[in-house]
Amino acid sequence: MTPDHDALFAAAARHAETLTRARLVLYAGANLPSPDVLAAFAPGLGAMPSMGPSFDKEQPGTEIVSQFEVAVRQEACALFNAAWAEPRLPSATLCNLAVFHAFARPGDLMLAPDKAQGGHLSQRRGGTPELAGLACEELPFDAAGLCLDATGAAGRVEARRPRLVMLGRSVMLRADDIAPVVAAARAVGATTVFDASHVAGLIAGGTYPNPLEAGVDVLVTSTYKTLPGLPHGLILGRDPAQGEALARLLDARFLANYNAALLPPLLRLLTAMRTGAADYARRIVANTAALAQACRARGLPVLAPEAGHTHQMLIPIAPSAEPRGLVAALAESGIIIGLCPDITRPERSALRVGTQFMATLGLGASDMALVADLLAAALRADTEGVELNPGGAAALPAQIRALLAGARPA
Amino acid sequence: MTPDHDALFAAAARHAETLTRARLVLYAGANLPSPDVLAAFAPGLGAMPSMGPSFDKEQPGTEIVSQFEVAVRQEACALFNAAWAEPRLPSATLCNLAVFHAFARPGDLMLAPDKAQGGHLSQRRGGTPELAGLACEELPFDAAGLCLDATGAAGRVEARRPRLVMLGRSVMLRADDIAPVVAAARAVGATTVFDASHVAGLIAGGTYPNPLEAGVDVLVTSTYKTLPGLPHGLILGRDPAQGEALARLLDARFLANYNAALLPPLLRLLTAMRTGAADYARRIVANTAALAQACRARGLPVLAPEAGHTHQMLIPIAPSAEPRGLVAALAESGIIIGLCPDITRPERSALRVGTQFMATLGLGASDMALVADLLAAALRADTEGVELNPGGAAALPAQIRALLAGARPA
Repeated sequence: MTPDHDALFAAAARHAETLTRARLVLYAGANLPSPDVLAAFAPGLGAMPSMGPSFDKEQPGTEIVSQFEVAVRQEACALFNAAWAEPRLPSATLCNLAVFHAFARPGDLMLAPDKAQGGHLSQRRGGTPELAGLACEELPFDAAGLCLDATGAAGRVEARRPRLVMLGRSVMLRADDIAPVVAAARAVGATTVFDASHVAGLIAGGTYPNPLEAGVDVLVTSTYKTLPGLPHGLILGRDPAQGEALARLLDARFLANYNAALLPPLLRLLTAMRTGAADYARRIVANTAALAQACRARGLPVLAPEAGHTHQMLIPIAPSAEPRGLVAALAESGIIIGLCPDITRPERSALRVGTQFMATLGLGASDMALVADLLAAALRADTEGVELNPGGAAALPAQIRALLAGARPA
Repeated sequence: MTPDHDALFAAAARHAETLTRARLVLYAGANLPSPDVLAAFAPGLGAMPSMGPSFDKEQPGTEIVSQFEVAVRQEACALFNAAWAEPRLPSATLCNLAVFHAFARPGDLMLAPDKAQGGHLSQRRGGTPELAGLACEELPFDAAGLCLDATGAAGRVEARRPRLVMLGRSVMLRADDIAPVVAAARAVGATTVFDASHVAGLIAGGTYPNPLEAGVDVLVTSTYKTLPGLPHGLILGRDPAQGEALARLLDARFLANYNAALLPPLLRLLTAMRTGAADYARRIVANTAALAQACRARGLPVLAPEAGHTHQMLIPIAPSAEPRGLVAALAESGIIIGLCPDITRPERSALRVGTQFMATLGLGASDMALVADLLAAALRADTEGVELNPGGAAALPAQIRALLAGARPA
């Protein structure tokens, strides 16, 4: 007797509703697309390969895929004020790997974010860059300012003369001042890459400064964090010659085919963001500010700037708590929240709280007091940070359902 | 005024029906999933990352993704008689790249198929292996036998002592005898990889010998050629330690997250193949044999074995014809067919005809006479090969619609 997996398929089919009705998703790198975006999924476009440049593909009958490639590039360039866009890669990590291969050679040096301040494995020492043979050294960080040490980073670029400079992190509580780093990189001939996976929707909406407009050469992003799409990758840039070099790499070595069924949802997302990103980004940022204030008012420690919020804030975890056990216990109560390093204290962890999923559901700043109530019930705080409040969990599932009953479906 | 892309979205939504009702899809690397497989697409599972080993993931609340990973691995191992399976990569090309990084180091030698006999860019010199720093040398081929030169290849392995041996190609007209190569590779400590992207459904169905049962270490495949799924990648193998090494590479450097929304369709596909692959593979092979015979009877040159067919046969193109122009003209008449090298004649091209898409639509051996009629109308042949028959195209679109009107929808 072999399993038919019926229960598993049923759970998968209702999982989006579970996330939107029965879980408080505070994970900072999560989102669910609108019904319009989902409805655009077009398996016919992925039925056969579409290899090579748009309208010059190896496979006949793929003109519709080329049309979508062109349309997605146009929308992406318009949204991010870019000169070129590459829409064919499935994730930001693989975008980063392609960028390393396209714009550096094995043995080259990259200055990159430190894991201790939220450098993602696709960006940093010990991770994806090593597949391309890159040597990585860390960029300095301003823990008190919760941001890149811009002056220090510029000096490091001048001193080390790297081939690549990787900016952006998976922990971004406020905008970095990247102008000095970009200027230093230009002076030494380094290519600058900004991994905007976490803040791309905020860039599109104008609440986070556009790195391309600040002079960054290449912007990489994922499409399901502050951009409310299906998981995918996007690469954008300023110099068309760099876009062409990247496309040649994809065509000859890196990509072969990709799943073009995902292009229509991506186009729908980008088109919706053209008019909707500003409001969405404003609501995300307002939620973060309101939630940070409400948490502080309830005695929870919060790492967030006084102004200029993103979708993220951190809640430091006390040394007495085991971080993975803490988030597992919160998940059992229905609160889905991730971990990251406490960027202000070595070897410590924090809860990384994201407000973008709540904004997608239509929760606003006025709802954040109740969200803070739930967090204050689930956690107890001392001067070192938070730990689980074992007695606080019982009522949470019902309270979460009540909070979300009035929310817009995703 | 910005475009709303309405016409493009509408064309995408009906493209699967276009392919199944108004095109004769003879492309050898194409397929469309069943409605059951499509219905299993579960965006909720991709709403947030699921990084790391099953049930030990960084993100809380991802148990359902782990359950699917385990179930897909079990079904894949059962279908291919493998000891381990890796279901998280989006394409066979990226599977190959991951395999190169997991089982070789920069500077290592790989013996691989020649482009001239259908070696895919992800397998061969000048393509994906170079991203991992591999040096590639070609395996010898038996053009008269339409297959790998097994004895020559084994001798090459013994003489060159490579780190990797890559088997399988994108042109596979009959089964290769890989036993001597596997034995030679074992003797020199080389890891063998079989890229089964084109024949995986035939392996599952038992009409193509299972490379893992012949002793190959690692099998890589795509899931939308002779396996009728959505585009995805699968890696399978015999030694659990190799599976663990590959998974560690994905977790630490290569993958970060992936789109888990695609796991339920993959599980549905594999489960359906458990009972359906044998009949599906038999129908594909019967169609190829019937189509080859019917084309020959109509004076078209065909490269295919006398017995032991796959889903592929080749029709050599005359030097007088421009190959890309020829397939473009055929596509305008509704016949979607791809190009490949003529594996028997250097510098010549061939039409690579695949029968798996027709088998998915329920067309059988008795329909192949009409398909051959259409090809014979569209092409004219001399002793050197085929070229376009300019007068033959007018009636084709209507004839294709008539042929497909009785076919099962995909």
